Amino acid sequence: MADLPAADAEPIATDALIVGAGPVALFAVFELGLLEVGAEVVDSLPFIGGQCVELYAEKPIYDIPALPHATGAELIARLRRQIAPFSTGFHLGQQVSEVALRDDGRFDVATDAGQRFIARTVVIAAGVGSFQPRGLKVAGLDAWREKQMFYRDPGEEVTAGRRVVIAGNGEAAVAAALDAVESGATRVTVVHRRDDFDAPTAMLLRFQSARALDRIEVVAAQASGFASDGDRLQGLVVDTSDGGTRTLDLDVLLVLLGWSPKLGPIAQWGLALERKQLVVDTGRFETSTPGIHAIGDVVTYPGKQKLIVSGFHEATLAAYAIAERVHPDRAQPLLYTTTSPKLHKLLGVDPAHPVPPSLR
Amino acid sequence: MADLPAADAEPIATDALIVGAGPVALFAVFELGLLEVGAEVVDSLPFIGGQCVELYAEKPIYDIPALPHATGAELIARLRRQIAPFSTGFHLGQQVSEVALRDDGRFDVATDAGQRFIARTVVIAAGVGSFQPRGLKVAGLDAWREKQMFYRDPGEEVTAGRRVVIAGNGEAAVAAALDAVESGATRVTVVHRRDDFDAPTAMLLRFQSARALDRIEVVAAQASGFASDGDRLQGLVVDTSDGGTRTLDLDVLLVLLGWSPKLGPIAQWGLALERKQLVVDTGRFETSTPGIHAIGDVVTYPGKQKLIVSGFHEATLAAYAIAERVHPDRAQPLLYTTTSPKLHKLLGVDPAHPVPPSLR
Repeated sequence: MADLPAADAEPIATDALIVGAGPVALFAVFELGLLEVGAEVVDSLPFIGGQCVELYAEKPIYDIPALPHATGAELIARLRRQIAPFSTGFHLGQQVSEVALRDDGRFDVATDAGQRFIARTVVIAAGVGSFQPRGLKVAGLDAWREKQMFYRDPGEEVTAGRRVVIAGNGEAAVAAALDAVESGATRVTVVHRRDDFDAPTAMLLRFQSARALDRIEVVAAQASGFASDGDRLQGLVVDTSDGGTRTLDLDVLLVLLGWSPKLGPIAQWGLALERKQLVVDTGRFETSTPGIHAIGDVVTYPGKQKLIVSGFHEATLAAYAIAERVHPDRAQPLLYTTTSPKLHKLLGVDPAHPVPPSLR
Repeated sequence: MADLPAADAEPIATDALIVGAGPVALFAVFELGLLEVGAEVVDSLPFIGGQCVELYAEKPIYDIPALPHATGAELIARLRRQIAPFSTGFHLGQQVSEVALRDDGRFDVATDAGQRFIARTVVIAAGVGSFQPRGLKVAGLDAWREKQMFYRDPGEEVTAGRRVVIAGNGEAAVAAALDAVESGATRVTVVHRRDDFDAPTAMLLRFQSARALDRIEVVAAQASGFASDGDRLQGLVVDTSDGGTRTLDLDVLLVLLGWSPKLGPIAQWGLALERKQLVVDTGRFETSTPGIHAIGDVVTYPGKQKLIVSGFHEATLAAYAIAERVHPDRAQPLLYTTTSPKLHKLLGVDPAHPVPPSLR
């Protein structure tokens, strides 16, 4: 959890509270900024970029218009430079848990970390939902989360000199096992139901060498329970493939089974849903509750394709609708960034310096 | 006119005939290509890029997602690299004049240059229409077009040693006058109703110097007729601001009053229009005639904003609808360019060479 607010902190007032910090959310910040609508962004991940960083940071994307080739990380870096002219608050590592309409037509918004907002409008750009780690099917383990049980490799400070058990068979599990060996873990055990690992070849070769040298033990088994003295997690109980049971003694348990998206609390906000997606119109990208808009992979409408290019358009039209609500007294004529002195001022560029300050 | 077809040339059969070669049309080529739909492109301008090249080649655009700053020319160059994996025919400097439904459900398409197509679908991405030069309000002058009368500066081969009259007061007129002086024109006269010129300061200073040296004469007047011996244009007749009439002798007349877009023949194809824009649905971006789609600035629907970012989305959804018509037997599941081996093959990339050949 990053930047936890004080329990009694004043709510932050904002024009637009954006749920999600993926590429579509970032472009919404940009289009809102051009329309002089301020934004605060909340994301359950501890970093900016959503799926693009969580799943595709180093993987190529080919279908962003006029970007014939970009990694997820590069796409996000470019969007972050694009929104640099606008001051936007990011509230990461926390999930929006509550949204409630106020008597004054604004919304009370709260996160599970205790941050509160009073927002004129809400933009749900939550993608496929918030990413939740896949856990072991063992009730009660979560009591040790972030103490002895981790869903991300906690690094050598936590693993050095310890007995480390790792659940998983993908690249994250293989890499964590190798890192644990290097960090000086006293024992490294990898448990998965089959002795079958999926990682880049060079990494697998190092993994097999470490196994051959008995630095890593692989146990083909499924977790079925745990051992504890009440205060500390002491072992993972597994059912082995030969029908037996074994307890793997441990100090640290890494559960690296991947992350899967869940719509989460959004499903409880009373918004019209169709097959777990938010129903929106295609002119304003507004949900069934006026003032709450939704864009990107979380929405559905006739013809919808879950592509980033569509999310960019949805963010744009939602921004115009939001600007009407935030600045009801103001006409919103279409201005072009190429020719409008007003937009140039907002972007911090002028004819003598056409390149934005963030790119110089 | 580029690449004029032989009068008796066979029609070109294509999956999608795209009217327009601006950024939105180019991205339609890309999305169609990913769906294995081939395309031929026709544009009235003699080059690829539409307004982006005609009007904004060197001007900055700031609101293309993830491109914080690009000139019109750069945007088009990037899109051309993006469509490089697909072989696309471009038919430039000609206007689609006729579109007619055939008995077999395809369309007969013809251009004013005599090129014919048989197209399964048509995509109108004509922007604000085809750019037509603003002419002088003098009937009959067009008889000398491209002979003695030009809507673009024809260059020193045409102006050297000649008497040049230029109509206009913008940057194009001022630049052409200076170029004509440098090319060795024997006389350079600029005619405009007011002695009031709009061009970059440095250019205006050079213009005023040339006037002071009598190399350029400015006549405050309005064209009202012409003088001719039947074969050749001999002079432009103008009404001067003092109420008199004068004939400006000439060999070459440059009419540089700007270009304005006209919807043109599209208005005659029987498609539903609303205030000169094509009415489309927002799921398939199809006009009132099934099989004829429309995208970009030429369309209208609730919430429409004439922004390139929206055109990219419209191109994408139109492509999916077109793929259904072209490949009715095939499901079109959403594939991601990041993960789909099929799309990687179409793009000419593979895990060992993630950068497309056109970018290496």
